[in-house]
Amino acid sequence: MNKYAIVVAGGKGLRMGADIPKQFLPLAGKPVLMHTLEAFYRYDSEMKIILVLPVSQQAFWKKLCLDHGFDVPHRIANGGESRYDSVKNGLALTEGEALVAIHDGVRPFLNTGLIARCFAKAAEKGSAIPVFELTESLRRIEGKVSFSEPRDAYRSVQTPQTFRLDILKKAYELPNCDRFTDDASIVEAAGFPIDLVEGLRENIKITTPLDLLLAEQIFKLKS
Amino acid sequence: MNKYAIVVAGGKGLRMGADIPKQFLPLAGKPVLMHTLEAFYRYDSEMKIILVLPVSQQAFWKKLCLDHGFDVPHRIANGGESRYDSVKNGLALTEGEALVAIHDGVRPFLNTGLIARCFAKAAEKGSAIPVFELTESLRRIEGKVSFSEPRDAYRSVQTPQTFRLDILKKAYELPNCDRFTDDASIVEAAGFPIDLVEGLRENIKITTPLDLLLAEQIFKLKS
Repeated sequence: MNKYAIVVAGGKGLRMGADIPKQFLPLAGKPVLMHTLEAFYRYDSEMKIILVLPVSQQAFWKKLCLDHGFDVPHRIANGGESRYDSVKNGLALTEGEALVAIHDGVRPFLNTGLIARCFAKAAEKGSAIPVFELTESLRRIEGKVSFSEPRDAYRSVQTPQTFRLDILKKAYELPNCDRFTDDASIVEAAGFPIDLVEGLRENIKITTPLDLLLAEQIFKLKS
Repeated sequence: MNKYAIVVAGGKGLRMGADIPKQFLPLAGKPVLMHTLEAFYRYDSEMKIILVLPVSQQAFWKKLCLDHGFDVPHRIANGGESRYDSVKNGLALTEGEALVAIHDGVRPFLNTGLIARCFAKAAEKGSAIPVFELTESLRRIEGKVSFSEPRDAYRSVQTPQTFRLDILKKAYELPNCDRFTDDASIVEAAGFPIDLVEGLRENIKITTPLDLLLAEQIFKLKS
């Protein structure tokens, strides 16, 4: 079956306080996004990688690829107004019987084991969402009051969220909605079951300067 | 009103894969726990600090204090079988009209602002729990299925959790229970309202080698 990775890198990077979007910030000498794409390429050099980038960033990305001699094959789709729109633009480049992993561009530390777990489970069940146990206590907010929740009953959700393409395309026929914080919530809203796989502790999302510092440390640990 | 800090350092450190418990691991040249106690001392040098330590670690701690010339005044209570027992042992050293901040020994990055917020809110309302927004999507597990949850409706819970002493003592008359993952859950179970304050992103709990690496980076950022 065809395998796709849709890597979503719509971030404007405003939260980083940096001039360039966070997916382009250097991590161990090259942009975060290159590490991310390389992880998929290492897993399967035949898989089709679709990078979703805002139109305004595409020329900059192409220059970065030239400067770094970056040769992981990929196609580019246009980023949309929201994450939902971006994924939809990426999906427009997919076809046939396939499995699709949708991944945050700013999570460069996914590894072959995690990607393999996701594709294997999605091939069997239709969906695979990597999750991780919560390390902190949890409270639920209801108006002005809050309640202690048993954290064992919750999981923190990572990417790559992986699905059969036909399921994903049906799910993305639903109109966008505030409740859709990830692809699993969309697929679930469309009535499909969601299967979980074990995530990876270091598969962090780089969204703050502190995360980038942590990322440098993770990179050193892995090398 | 009297102010207490009960710093709970019961960890055996097994998860760190290190020989010494994680509260003693060096961070920027001195044990994690010393940073933690210093934060309370910086906030108010008159407040009473109670350190809860397993009996087996107390001689080692005293030697560390001598070696480092550590002079933050504090009393030591014996660690118990569970966190609940440890806090209870710390509470046995408190008295009078007071406010009590209960804090994880392995969270060395709390600052004066956070401690001040907690004591101010607890003085006004009886309780103050520092919380932080979730950065990842959240799923709730029910048996073999799971459900997407709106992460805006949840908060990740930190310490110092701060209470009026009379409330805390009443709450700790309840017998221990699996559902008690923090002090707020105990106080809530005893029927008292819980008030929230804004936590601090860098107020992380050091529980894995990766956390310790991140901690070194946070320390550099702050210095």
